[in-house]
Amino acid sequence: MLASFVISLKLDRDLTLPGLGAEALHGLFFEVLRGYDAGFAAHLHREVDKPFSLSGVLTEHPKRDGRLHIGADGRVEFRLGLLTDDIIEPTLAAFGALAMSATPVRFGSASAHVEGIAFQPGTHPLVRATTYPALVQKASPDARATLQFVSPTSFRAGDVQDVLPRPERVFGSLFEAWQTFAPLPLDPALAELFALIRVSAYELRTELIHFARYKVIGFKGRVTYTYPRDLNAPTRQALNALADFAFFAGVGYKTTMGMGQVLSEAADRRLSAGRAGR
Amino acid sequence: MLASFVISLKLDRDLTLPGLGAEALHGLFFEVLRGYDAGFAAHLHREVDKPFSLSGVLTEHPKRDGRLHIGADGRVEFRLGLLTDDIIEPTLAAFGALAMSATPVRFGSASAHVEGIAFQPGTHPLVRATTYPALVQKASPDARATLQFVSPTSFRAGDVQDVLPRPERVFGSLFEAWQTFAPLPLDPALAELFALIRVSAYELRTELIHFARYKVIGFKGRVTYTYPRDLNAPTRQALNALADFAFFAGVGYKTTMGMGQVLSEAADRRLSAGRAGR
Repeated sequence: MLASFVISLKLDRDLTLPGLGAEALHGLFFEVLRGYDAGFAAHLHREVDKPFSLSGVLTEHPKRDGRLHIGADGRVEFRLGLLTDDIIEPTLAAFGALAMSATPVRFGSASAHVEGIAFQPGTHPLVRATTYPALVQKASPDARATLQFVSPTSFRAGDVQDVLPRPERVFGSLFEAWQTFAPLPLDPALAELFALIRVSAYELRTELIHFARYKVIGFKGRVTYTYPRDLNAPTRQALNALADFAFFAGVGYKTTMGMGQVLSEAADRRLSAGRAGR
Repeated sequence: MLASFVISLKLDRDLTLPGLGAEALHGLFFEVLRGYDAGFAAHLHREVDKPFSLSGVLTEHPKRDGRLHIGADGRVEFRLGLLTDDIIEPTLAAFGALAMSATPVRFGSASAHVEGIAFQPGTHPLVRATTYPALVQKASPDARATLQFVSPTSFRAGDVQDVLPRPERVFGSLFEAWQTFAPLPLDPALAELFALIRVSAYELRTELIHFARYKVIGFKGRVTYTYPRDLNAPTRQALNALADFAFFAGVGYKTTMGMGQVLSEAADRRLSAGRAGR
């Protein structure tokens, strides 16, 4: 399964965090998992390819000098994209237990209470659940996909950051995560098409994102990718399934630290269509 | 020599032109040259690599449905970037003669009078003159260059348009024009560095540009290119000379039809420094 949960926190006092606040959220996530199942948390921490993506702080807070200033009375929301059943179950259980017990958890230099974990589709626009086969079956046969990069996105290429949304890197990053985590891999021949995908429209700007001890450049905005002509419908669907997968997996570098958060416009329409009350 | 002239026209009646109006300006330019030296115009028309770049209509006119609506009383300005002495001389003479004689020239479905040709640096921000050796000698030794793409820019790659500002294409396009038109070519080894240049920041959006019988997508906005570390100062200067050359040559596809018009920020500062009254 694939899931996207939105977690809300309440702080015990004022806090400032660099950039997107994602290092503190990353720390909190591991601490919460550790409290529930130390063995699983340790195992996850050692994994090179981690089956989750993590947003920065999604709620609005004042920004000064590259830092978020969060008031003790403010709510903090963030999103987890979860790519395997193995991580969905303990995550839900761990945050659920904390929300009920009101046990505080370390958050940066403060501590926080977990107010809630939204996991039922329909309760929040960013909460969704699907399966890998459903992503493929329900993918559009359109010959293009538009991705909205909502947090700074970049790619590590050798020892430099690549901040162009090159199709081969964007789809390559998604393909790699899919092949690692999906119960059924995609046809490896699909990857040969990525260099043939065209960028047909975009509106993008780079942005510097502050981490505690360094800064990274990424791009934000919207890109339309157009597939090579004469692809059959199943191949177009497989490419669109990768585009839809971006919502859960993120794209590129440091997707477990708030970077590379993506919305897919086609998936938004489709995944929202059946949502209760919307 | 390298020169950038700004030409102003006055129309005899209202006129609508697709997109940037560059096809009509291209036609006018060749008609003016033909009136002065038919042999030279015919020769130039046959050349595959043309030693000029041509802006679209620079003056502001209402736009509707992808067309410019130019009133008979409105002035039209456009810019010519000229890359060799061979074309500078007849261009100056031909437009100069027309400006004095008040002979009308065909402009789209209307006709126009040449009101003036600004060729003396200092008379207009887009009027400049330099030489290839001076471009190199005066180029900055900075390890980066920022190019402002002021009209839609793209690259023809096989049978598709590439609308990403990939360093190898941007610098490759400039290098090719330089090697074709400069009295002294640059070291061919320079071209091996282009793939190592990084895009370090940008703010760009694609835009569809209408021509009479087709449309082309290009990107507009600002890109900073950062050179590989450990380049010596002369190599950095050679790369910056190419960046400065973009003002005259344009970049990429259809630079004789209004596309790929570029300002280089470093060159702007330097080339403006000695300008009278500014």
